[in-house]
Amino acid sequence: MIYLDYAATTPISKNALQAYCESAEKFYGNTNSLHDEGTKAKEMVKMCQAELASYIQANEEEIYFTNGGSDSNLLAVKSILGSSPPSKKHIITSKLEHSSLLSLWDTLEEEGYDISYVSIMEDGTINLENLRECITDETCLIAIQHVNHELGTVHPVKEIGEIAKIYNIPFHCDGVQSFLKLPINVRDMHITSLSIASHKIYGPKGTGALYLSKEIPKVKQHGTIDVPSIVAFTVAAQEQKKILTDTYNSHVNLRRKLIHHIPVSAEIISPPDALPSIVGMKMDSLEGQYVMLWCNKYNIAISTGSACLVGQQEPSPYMIAMGKNVHESKQLFRISFGTSTTIEDIKAFTDCLKLLTTS
Amino acid sequence: MIYLDYAATTPISKNALQAYCESAEKFYGNTNSLHDEGTKAKEMVKMCQAELASYIQANEEEIYFTNGGSDSNLLAVKSILGSSPPSKKHIITSKLEHSSLLSLWDTLEEEGYDISYVSIMEDGTINLENLRECITDETCLIAIQHVNHELGTVHPVKEIGEIAKIYNIPFHCDGVQSFLKLPINVRDMHITSLSIASHKIYGPKGTGALYLSKEIPKVKQHGTIDVPSIVAFTVAAQEQKKILTDTYNSHVNLRRKLIHHIPVSAEIISPPDALPSIVGMKMDSLEGQYVMLWCNKYNIAISTGSACLVGQQEPSPYMIAMGKNVHESKQLFRISFGTSTTIEDIKAFTDCLKLLTTS
Repeated sequence: MIYLDYAATTPISKNALQAYCESAEKFYGNTNSLHDEGTKAKEMVKMCQAELASYIQANEEEIYFTNGGSDSNLLAVKSILGSSPPSKKHIITSKLEHSSLLSLWDTLEEEGYDISYVSIMEDGTINLENLRECITDETCLIAIQHVNHELGTVHPVKEIGEIAKIYNIPFHCDGVQSFLKLPINVRDMHITSLSIASHKIYGPKGTGALYLSKEIPKVKQHGTIDVPSIVAFTVAAQEQKKILTDTYNSHVNLRRKLIHHIPVSAEIISPPDALPSIVGMKMDSLEGQYVMLWCNKYNIAISTGSACLVGQQEPSPYMIAMGKNVHESKQLFRISFGTSTTIEDIKAFTDCLKLLTTS
Repeated sequence: MIYLDYAATTPISKNALQAYCESAEKFYGNTNSLHDEGTKAKEMVKMCQAELASYIQANEEEIYFTNGGSDSNLLAVKSILGSSPPSKKHIITSKLEHSSLLSLWDTLEEEGYDISYVSIMEDGTINLENLRECITDETCLIAIQHVNHELGTVHPVKEIGEIAKIYNIPFHCDGVQSFLKLPINVRDMHITSLSIASHKIYGPKGTGALYLSKEIPKVKQHGTIDVPSIVAFTVAAQEQKKILTDTYNSHVNLRRKLIHHIPVSAEIISPPDALPSIVGMKMDSLEGQYVMLWCNKYNIAISTGSACLVGQQEPSPYMIAMGKNVHESKQLFRISFGTSTTIEDIKAFTDCLKLLTTS
């Protein structure tokens, strides 16, 4: 199968899998145990914290391991809200966030929080002017993703961070789609917390990390730490770190070929300066779901948008946020490239779309 | 190192690790994706659900995968409370539960729930008479563990389930220390929800399962499903299921040897009918921590109680619940057997205690 759904999940890399196996044998102790097996495991985790911290200019003790990106999002928001004055109950966010956050906003609204959704510019990025206008004395959190999972839109994180800093408001950034795809510097970008998922960067599933500024006390995590997954995650991160620029350039090239080869009936929705590996598209008036199933028949795996959401085709939250109607919003489909995607894969995909046009 | 801390965590079995590696390559798709890679992964998860369900007489669709035992506990309680009438805000539980639940009770108390802690009998099991007395019209949950993690005490789960059934109250049972150590039948035992952890039965860390009766709607879970871990967990469960009785008998034998060989200065606190693989002990007036460090020096890994709690020695919640003072409650240490524990291991441990006595 030609896999063009790397933004949904990536297969684990060979080296990461080997690291998993080795760690499962060497570091099986419970990190909370005080005997040598526990201590060995704990020290290994510390090394992984230090390694990941160095990629985003964080301190080692600001990296926490979690069960994945969604878990990181929850942990970040809970920790930030838990350390805010109880009178401050206003959150600024966007309709483009991951479903784990969108659900959380609904729950928090029921609990008495006031949620402002910042408006979206024509290019799909959040409106900084509107963000500033939304801020009140009660604002206790700004939560905006770095890269959108449907379209690859890159939001102006540094500018958001600067605004947050001026008003002294914590800034949570969902970095699941951007970590090791784009450079991130949590100091320069004034990010209070950043979510990371291992399985988006060729690490094991069920593992993630949260950078949380040392100024915010983390709420308690329970459960036994999954050391083998953490080690494998770190090995995968090391690999991606090394090839970050090459991968980016190669994906720019693939995107160019894609644009060159798609039939006229297909249209690229992602903005030109989006992350090159995530391309949101639509085709005639077809539902994205139909295009996806067509490609699947030809052994090509693409997506209808956010894999963590669907099961049936939902209208794309991005399209809805852009003011499109439900019908149009169901037209989105997404292809996303990985480190082993080739020009031949792209050609096969565009040929498949052409077949659909003539069918 | 002689590892006698299997109740804290177990090393992953060879077959489970192999299953992890194979699944990481074969079933890397996101189970929410609608293309073939997603469908393949989803079907694999369904097979694992069916397998685990069959071990406890549940239905396949009543098994949910989680990030581990603590996560299962939270998911169960949230789901049960979410489906209870809002006026019912009374929970009956015990002071012996896992830290993930004890913390949750504190949070729920702040949110207006009334928590009753049922009293403990002299043999360490919960007092059924007191449980009955605690029940009110507002009781919406009874939560009692199956096997205690510090002492191996086996609570009368069937009797608790019968009481819960009479009063039509959901019964959550933390089965993390009992799953595939003792037979569990969720129908006969009238269990509404049962927590299971993979890493206690030679499966990977970071994975668990929740049995939740189909009568209770589960609250939404977010994040990408960790299929390789789920497959490995199921393979480990298959292995343990096959040898359940043999393992139990072998541990009864090891416990007998232990009792025969311990020095007079050491005392077994676990009741005679506890799970044979978990033995809580104390020694003279030494802190458990000191005994643990002594054993560690001689390359033997034992525990001071609940590994998920400590970092420094806390008084044992069990000992406190039994009315012991803080000093006495710090004396507890625990050894726990696994499938590869031998009589020689036990002998080495008792020799080590003897050395401590004469040192």
